[in-house]
Amino acid sequence: MAITIDPPKNSTLRNVDFTKLRDFTADAFIRAGLSKKDAIVAADVLATTDAWGVFTHGTKLVRGYLRRLRAGGLVPQAQPEIAAEGPAWAVVDGNCALAMITSTFAMNTAIAKAKTAGIAFVTVRNSCHFGAAGYYSWLAAQSGMVGLSMANDIPSVAAPGSRGAITGSNPIAYAIPGGRYPAILLDMSVATVAGGKVYAARTRGEKIPPTWLVGSDGKPTTDPSGYPESGALQPAAGHKGYGIALLIESLSGLISGAEFTWRVGSWMWDDGTKPTNHGAAFIAIDVNAMMPLNKFTQRVETLIDEIHNSARADGVDRLYVPGEMEWERLNKAMKAGIALPLDVRDSLREAGAMVGLDFEDVVA
Amino acid sequence: MAITIDPPKNSTLRNVDFTKLRDFTADAFIRAGLSKKDAIVAADVLATTDAWGVFTHGTKLVRGYLRRLRAGGLVPQAQPEIAAEGPAWAVVDGNCALAMITSTFAMNTAIAKAKTAGIAFVTVRNSCHFGAAGYYSWLAAQSGMVGLSMANDIPSVAAPGSRGAITGSNPIAYAIPGGRYPAILLDMSVATVAGGKVYAARTRGEKIPPTWLVGSDGKPTTDPSGYPESGALQPAAGHKGYGIALLIESLSGLISGAEFTWRVGSWMWDDGTKPTNHGAAFIAIDVNAMMPLNKFTQRVETLIDEIHNSARADGVDRLYVPGEMEWERLNKAMKAGIALPLDVRDSLREAGAMVGLDFEDVVA
Repeated sequence: MAITIDPPKNSTLRNVDFTKLRDFTADAFIRAGLSKKDAIVAADVLATTDAWGVFTHGTKLVRGYLRRLRAGGLVPQAQPEIAAEGPAWAVVDGNCALAMITSTFAMNTAIAKAKTAGIAFVTVRNSCHFGAAGYYSWLAAQSGMVGLSMANDIPSVAAPGSRGAITGSNPIAYAIPGGRYPAILLDMSVATVAGGKVYAARTRGEKIPPTWLVGSDGKPTTDPSGYPESGALQPAAGHKGYGIALLIESLSGLISGAEFTWRVGSWMWDDGTKPTNHGAAFIAIDVNAMMPLNKFTQRVETLIDEIHNSARADGVDRLYVPGEMEWERLNKAMKAGIALPLDVRDSLREAGAMVGLDFEDVVA
Repeated sequence: MAITIDPPKNSTLRNVDFTKLRDFTADAFIRAGLSKKDAIVAADVLATTDAWGVFTHGTKLVRGYLRRLRAGGLVPQAQPEIAAEGPAWAVVDGNCALAMITSTFAMNTAIAKAKTAGIAFVTVRNSCHFGAAGYYSWLAAQSGMVGLSMANDIPSVAAPGSRGAITGSNPIAYAIPGGRYPAILLDMSVATVAGGKVYAARTRGEKIPPTWLVGSDGKPTTDPSGYPESGALQPAAGHKGYGIALLIESLSGLISGAEFTWRVGSWMWDDGTKPTNHGAAFIAIDVNAMMPLNKFTQRVETLIDEIHNSARADGVDRLYVPGEMEWERLNKAMKAGIALPLDVRDSLREAGAMVGLDFEDVVA
């Protein structure tokens, strides 16, 4: 979870071309010591995330990743490897590679195994902050599979009744092939809202709903002024979000041999020379094993049509399926460029400066 | 989701012995035409659910199941079978057997396959209301596996912005082997709360929190007086609960060939002579494939200890892990009997009368 403030949109800023943004990001990683192949993989994850409009988890993070790659906590030439495997599973050791590389490798391993086994589970250790979970799920959907991706992180979310954080925001995403529609794609954390939303309310001096945060006393609060120095995010739907967080912790952290809860390093704040040892997990389910893919996607289309045609509350223009907003933003971005917020541009400018690249060349 | 009102506890009622309750339930099913083996399987699911204190999904439902078994929508002698399978997956056709039998068969199939493949996915069609999802997950945990169980159901839960119900309450449960602790066990629906809680507030003439229900106009309401005739439950955490509902619908309903959303029959209200064709899905992940089970459960124990020892908000006595309350209730019930609520006793009395059994013999 990145603490970020999305500034008001500035219409005088030019949109940024997707390919230019991706190439800039790849160049930055190459200059940090990554192979061209790895750099392109990681850059595609981050630029696609921006194209979806999920700016908190896109190229804004390049600067932070470069810092870790320089400090040694992430290793530029490291390659993830399969530490153990079976017909339908693998344990992947990330070996401190950039987590976009490890996560793509892990999901591709799951996809390959699911092609023969029907389903595959790949759990990952020695990884780091992996960006937007949804990207890896989408890799599976592109292969005609249902994909699930998840990861643990440093604690930031309370349990019901706790005074402070107990679990990470532990993202989980799934993607389902959509036939003539883009993949159904949900990417969520187990917290009610991202910490960035709480922090943004703080900077604006606003109150927050009582379901977002607990204060330093562990009680729900509408006052964000102490966050993030004290307090913790509330789990989504109370014990449900908390329970899902522990499932993710188990499949990502416990079973892989990665660190868990307070033992995970903060990729942003902790000593950059040391591995964070995040865990992650990926599941691919090959639709074709159980039902011909086109029959399945016809059923998905029927479900989506049914939702689109359902009665709406007054004032509601459309009913969305998960991911629909993101795919529309992406389609628009591919044609008209990405309306990168100011904070992302500033971050990319600094990232570029770290490796001798000028972000203005991308915008021009 | 059962609409139920838990009456105030009546201390003059005797607790009911677990074994007697299970045997009574099994006898009732045998008299309805089930084999002894199947009857015991189903009775154990329902009596265990009562022992967990989840009375909405326990033996209270026997009466309704007997009605369907008589009407023909459920078939007493039917056996679930594997319609298609591979190394790590199967499609199970429930053949209109009682869903406890089909679901136990399906999870046991997943467990057997996971023993060689590491993970297995079993999707189910031609099933019915399966009771408490958690029971089947727990079967996996007893085999040293992480278990996941889920099912679709008739729509009762809104999507963000919808005027009425879009998805079922679509239960999902997981269980994780706990070592010296009982399994971590979460069993949840995708709605903020069960419809029974809304209905109970209605009967008491109380207002409800604004996150529970949308009214007939699709807007959040604090007035439960129109439910369940109109209105729909709100999804837990808005788009998150809604998104999880669609994942469950896809893995249970779409990929299995079962019915989905409005095409699923209501096991309680629709024509009892017709199959409901619910879908369900079960996943088992064999911990031992990835990590020695005792090493894994040591890590689970460390996580549980950490949670138990974490700071609590004022007035909070304990921090629980999912399932902990249910296991404590079960342990108490196994020693002192189950404090069945009045509505469950009334239902069991009627169920007994349907097949010539006297529930009073159980209480005596």
